[in-house]
Amino acid sequence: MKKVFFTVGPSQLYPTVYGHIDEALKENIPSISHRSEKFMDIYQNTTVLVKKVLSIPSSFHVFFTASSLESMERILQNCVYRHSFHLVNGAFSKTFYKFALQLGLKPEKIEAPFGQGFDFDKIKIPKEAELICITHNETSTGVSLPMNKIYQLRSCYPNKLIALDIVSSAPYEKIDFSKIDIAFFSLQKGFGLPAGLGVLIVSDKAVTRASKVADRKSTGSYHSFSSYLEYEKKSQTPETPNVLAVYLLGKVASDMLKKGIKTIREETVEKADHIYKFFDQHNRFRPFIKDKDFRSKTTIVVDVGNKSKQVRKKLQNKGLVVGSGYGDYKDSHIRIANFPAHQLDDIKRLLKQF
Amino acid sequence: MKKVFFTVGPSQLYPTVYGHIDEALKENIPSISHRSEKFMDIYQNTTVLVKKVLSIPSSFHVFFTASSLESMERILQNCVYRHSFHLVNGAFSKTFYKFALQLGLKPEKIEAPFGQGFDFDKIKIPKEAELICITHNETSTGVSLPMNKIYQLRSCYPNKLIALDIVSSAPYEKIDFSKIDIAFFSLQKGFGLPAGLGVLIVSDKAVTRASKVADRKSTGSYHSFSSYLEYEKKSQTPETPNVLAVYLLGKVASDMLKKGIKTIREETVEKADHIYKFFDQHNRFRPFIKDKDFRSKTTIVVDVGNKSKQVRKKLQNKGLVVGSGYGDYKDSHIRIANFPAHQLDDIKRLLKQF
Repeated sequence: MKKVFFTVGPSQLYPTVYGHIDEALKENIPSISHRSEKFMDIYQNTTVLVKKVLSIPSSFHVFFTASSLESMERILQNCVYRHSFHLVNGAFSKTFYKFALQLGLKPEKIEAPFGQGFDFDKIKIPKEAELICITHNETSTGVSLPMNKIYQLRSCYPNKLIALDIVSSAPYEKIDFSKIDIAFFSLQKGFGLPAGLGVLIVSDKAVTRASKVADRKSTGSYHSFSSYLEYEKKSQTPETPNVLAVYLLGKVASDMLKKGIKTIREETVEKADHIYKFFDQHNRFRPFIKDKDFRSKTTIVVDVGNKSKQVRKKLQNKGLVVGSGYGDYKDSHIRIANFPAHQLDDIKRLLKQF
Repeated sequence: MKKVFFTVGPSQLYPTVYGHIDEALKENIPSISHRSEKFMDIYQNTTVLVKKVLSIPSSFHVFFTASSLESMERILQNCVYRHSFHLVNGAFSKTFYKFALQLGLKPEKIEAPFGQGFDFDKIKIPKEAELICITHNETSTGVSLPMNKIYQLRSCYPNKLIALDIVSSAPYEKIDFSKIDIAFFSLQKGFGLPAGLGVLIVSDKAVTRASKVADRKSTGSYHSFSSYLEYEKKSQTPETPNVLAVYLLGKVASDMLKKGIKTIREETVEKADHIYKFFDQHNRFRPFIKDKDFRSKTTIVVDVGNKSKQVRKKLQNKGLVVGSGYGDYKDSHIRIANFPAHQLDDIKRLLKQF
């Protein structure tokens, strides 16, 4: 029986990945030197294609980290001398805030209850805040923040940097990068690849800020922004990276461009509408997020009233794997990923089980 | 034509890796949750087998980093409040020292010329040094430090921690872990796996030291030793790790145990002797390391008198890939890896070309 993983990441592999891994092994990609021309070609190809898929302007840099948690740490280390500000409405936005504390910064936060968004008109950000940290799509709750509200923050606070966690919304969400400074995601969510590589997208403005921070304190070692920039000139990374993942990301980005990112986005909306419509009309289970403005298209959380374990077991027996709820909601929620790797037919097959 | 990579890492894949990747894809390893029981089983299996291969006592912890450069950073962040001491005799030991500076520490060093070891009897380590950092096998020069000399340092300075870079000597070198506190390596060298995972081996004593350092300053966020320990209890990692690599490491460790680590070590010596003997008698090319006590068994550097490019090109045409020299020696050296993935027959085929 063909298994389908609707888990919110790691998740179903993008259908072309298997072929690309085969090809990579035939081409000896895992054996090539990370200082070779062959690697530099791969690096260039991947960064160019990722920029194309996400419409990232040329004034942005693409750095490779090992995970999105690493991206959070590097952003705080490099872009904040003392004060960060965090929009906290779930586990991952809270982690970003907690990291700032652990790194000895003085973060402040505004907090929304689990499963809710923010009243953006009421957000007041302190003068000393250098960086605003926002989780666009909270994988723990299924809340997605409207991009126009985030852009509104930018207009109100044009001198502060904005770092956007797009871990589980990329590549679905079309982002106007002229209105943010930093974004990051990792491969095991929307790109449908094995885990083990993070992508950190950084504006020239953020790079300049980082160099000023570096004048006043340590910004780390091999993964300081200045170290990344030094190696970027050579189309290389400071360390031996996950070469295979850099290669595969380029291949999948290319496949997505061939299919058309517009098509992928339209299909994502279609599939999400299908799922929400189904559970809005279900007699027992309901979408956890009530406010439709905040409903994520990519990570859909369903309240199954303490039946999470049974539901997941039943689905598992049919080869359909969904996620449990997060933290306190482990037993009362299921989480369904709706990434580009997920086909409408698979979603129909999933919904038939309810 | 079958290519063989004698590069010093990334290098030739261990022969069983292809089959294990196939199996991993069939088992959906890249899609499983890093919080699932299936992952916890993989984590346990891999850490247990790595400990077996390297004879690591139970009082040590196995943490996963993304690279050996990350391991260096985390060691310094967690185990040093202010003073580290470094034995510098090549590019990677120098990097370790440089990271300490970049992290705002006050490192001191003793330096040996490129291609030489140390006169251990003359090493005097300052009282305030908290950690002694040693690169067992300098991949840049082909110098390997005798373990008994390192143990001798331990006897002279029993209260200081010793961190040992075994990046290109594991699993060949048999280490007495009761005489060091920390060791680290990454997958793309002796274990013959794709790059993208580092292994950081840490004693209880180092963990205790880290908790004292953490009382006085920030030791990082998700990859602080305390964070690692919290997740280790659950057989998990703080972040979504390179799950596929954790799986593959366990598989290759198991294969090595089946073959017998003693056999692997004997074969390594046999192959190394073959290479050194050949070049000791060669009419034009000579082993770069003259002092036989310091000659690495795993990364063998040959002085080819400015012919590096031509030699490498000629070999490349026969499907044999060796490394260039490091840094200033790029054009005058070649570097030949002698890892468990390299077969004696391949080495004979290589030497025939000279």
